[in-house]
Amino acid sequence: MKAGILGYGNLGRGVEAAIERCEDIELAAVYTRRDPSGLSIVSKNAKVKSAADLEDGREDIDVLVICGGSATDLPVMTPKYAQWYNVVDSFDTHANIPVHFADVDAAAKKGGRIGLISCGWDPGMFSLNRLYAKAILPGGHDYTFWGKGVSQGHSDAIRRIEGVKDARQYTIPVEEAVERVRKGETPDFTTREKHTRECFVVLEDGADAAKVENEIKTMPNYFADYDTTVHFITDDEMKRDHSGLPHGGSVIYSGETGIKGSRHVIEYSLKLDSNPEFTGAVLTAYARAIVRLNNEGVTGGKTVFDIAPAYLSPVSGEELRAHYL
Amino acid sequence: MKAGILGYGNLGRGVEAAIERCEDIELAAVYTRRDPSGLSIVSKNAKVKSAADLEDGREDIDVLVICGGSATDLPVMTPKYAQWYNVVDSFDTHANIPVHFADVDAAAKKGGRIGLISCGWDPGMFSLNRLYAKAILPGGHDYTFWGKGVSQGHSDAIRRIEGVKDARQYTIPVEEAVERVRKGETPDFTTREKHTRECFVVLEDGADAAKVENEIKTMPNYFADYDTTVHFITDDEMKRDHSGLPHGGSVIYSGETGIKGSRHVIEYSLKLDSNPEFTGAVLTAYARAIVRLNNEGVTGGKTVFDIAPAYLSPVSGEELRAHYL
Repeated sequence: MKAGILGYGNLGRGVEAAIERCEDIELAAVYTRRDPSGLSIVSKNAKVKSAADLEDGREDIDVLVICGGSATDLPVMTPKYAQWYNVVDSFDTHANIPVHFADVDAAAKKGGRIGLISCGWDPGMFSLNRLYAKAILPGGHDYTFWGKGVSQGHSDAIRRIEGVKDARQYTIPVEEAVERVRKGETPDFTTREKHTRECFVVLEDGADAAKVENEIKTMPNYFADYDTTVHFITDDEMKRDHSGLPHGGSVIYSGETGIKGSRHVIEYSLKLDSNPEFTGAVLTAYARAIVRLNNEGVTGGKTVFDIAPAYLSPVSGEELRAHYL
Repeated sequence: MKAGILGYGNLGRGVEAAIERCEDIELAAVYTRRDPSGLSIVSKNAKVKSAADLEDGREDIDVLVICGGSATDLPVMTPKYAQWYNVVDSFDTHANIPVHFADVDAAAKKGGRIGLISCGWDPGMFSLNRLYAKAILPGGHDYTFWGKGVSQGHSDAIRRIEGVKDARQYTIPVEEAVERVRKGETPDFTTREKHTRECFVVLEDGADAAKVENEIKTMPNYFADYDTTVHFITDDEMKRDHSGLPHGGSVIYSGETGIKGSRHVIEYSLKLDSNPEFTGAVLTAYARAIVRLNNEGVTGGKTVFDIAPAYLSPVSGEELRAHYL
C-alpha cells in the first residue's frame, strides 16, 4: 500500500522512519504546506510535494498520515482530507474529541473513506489498555502515570518566558505513588502526589535567574500544582544532555472479582527512547489497518477502540493463530 | 443479555463471579454433565440444568461460556455447541489451535453463530499484547514470563507421583532475566534462565521423601529443565498457606525505530489473586462482545485478535471517546 505524510516535523519524520521498517507499506510522498523545493527528506524513493497537490483527492495514495498540531491544524486538516483519503491523526485535545470525531466521521462517510483520530500512545495505546482493563474488571480504578519523559507543551511554555533562550521539561512519576497502585491500593492522589516536574533552562544573556525560576514554578496549570525543580544550564549542556525526546509511562488498573474480592492489578507500561518515533510507529500500524478495513467496505470516523487488533498486523489470520496466540 | 455456563469447576465459578458484577449480563443457567440436583451454585437467580438440555439449541441463552479442559472436553464441546449458540472457550493447547479453530469456525458458520476460542490471559490478553507490540515495532523481540503463580498442570503432575497426597507448584520468573529484558536487552535465554519452580508437597504416610523429591526434579518436560525446589509440608500448612490460585506474569517486547535505532520497551503485566476468577472475567467480556457482533450479523470462528476493543465494553461509543480516549 502507498502512504503519504502531511507535515514533516518530529512526528512526520517518526512516521517516515516507521514506514521504512514496514515491508508492505511504501512511502509515496511527504506533503508540505511550505515550498517543497526547500524540504529534503530521509526516504530515498519518496517525493516531496505541496499540500496543494492533495486537493480533490488527486493523489494516488491509500492513506494519508496527518502530522499537524491539535490546536489549529488537525481540526481543519483531518476533516478536509478525510473526504478524499483514508486518514490517521494524533489529535489529543481531550475536551474536543467528540466534536473532532463528528467532523471527521461526516467527511469520511461522505467520501467513502475512513478517518481514524487520536492515535498514538496517549491517546492511543494507553486508552486501549484503560478500555480493556475496565471491560474485564468493571468498577475498578485506573491510574495513568507519565514519564520519565520530555513534555513538549511544558517545554514550550517555559520558552515563552522572557529571558529564556531554550528549555526542556521532564515529567517524572512519583515512584512511591506508582508502587502503592502496583500493590493494589486505590488512593485518591492530588496532582502533586503523582508527578514532579524537572526543568532545564538556558537563559538569555543578562536574564534574571531568580525571576525566571519563580515564573516557572508559579505558572498556573503547567507548574503551580507540582513540585518543580529548575536547573540553569548552558547551550552546550542542553545540546549534549537533552537533545532526545524520550518518554513513556504506565496505565495501572486495579480491580476485583468474586465474593471475597480477589484483587487483580493490570499494568501496561512504555519506555520510549523517542516519543515521536514510537507515536509514528503506532500511527503507521493503524494506517495499515484502516486501508484494509476500507478495502472491505468500512467507512466513517474511527478510533483505536473500533479496530480489531488483527488488522494492525501484516501477518495472516492463520499465522497469527498459529504463532501469536 | 442471557448467558449460560457449561461446567462448574474453578473456571466456571470464575465466570459466574464475573457475570455477577456485570449489569448488562444475566446468568440464566449453569449446565452440568453430572446430575443437576447434586450441584449447588452461588448465584441466587440462575438455574442448574443438565448439559443435555443444550441439545439442538433449545435453551434461551445469547451466549454459552464453555468451561472444560483443553485436552478432551473442548475439542468436542466447542464445535458441538457452536452450531447452536454463540460460544466462548479458553482452549490453550497451542499446537492444536489451528485444528480447533477450523472445527469451531465450520460449526459456527453453519449455525450462524460466533465461536470465540482460546480466550483468557494466556492465550488471550498476553497474545493481544504480543500482537499489538509486534505490529507497532516489527522485527523486535518478545518475552513472556509467567508467575509468580500456581501452575495447575505442574501441581497435577506431582500429585500423580506415588507417595504424594497433595501438591502445589509455583512458577517463578527469574528476576534478573526480567530486569535485563526491561532494560531493552534482547538475550536468548535457556528455559532454566527464565523461570524457577517451587513445589510444596504433602506426603502419604510412610512415603520416601528423597525418592519423591528426585522423581519431581528429574521429571521430563515438567521439571528437568528447571531449577526446582521441593518443600515437604503438612496437610494443615497446605490448607493454610496454599489454598489460593494466584498467578500472573509479563509480556515484555523490545523493538527499535529509526535510523539510529531508538529503543522502545513495551510491558504488559498481570498480578492476579485468582487465576480462574480473572480468566472468567476475560471470558465474560468476550462473551458480551460476540453477542453484540452476532447481533450485527457476524458469524464464524474468532479469537481475541478479531474483536474490536469497543465491543468488550458495555459503554457506548460516544462515552468511550469522551472519557476513555
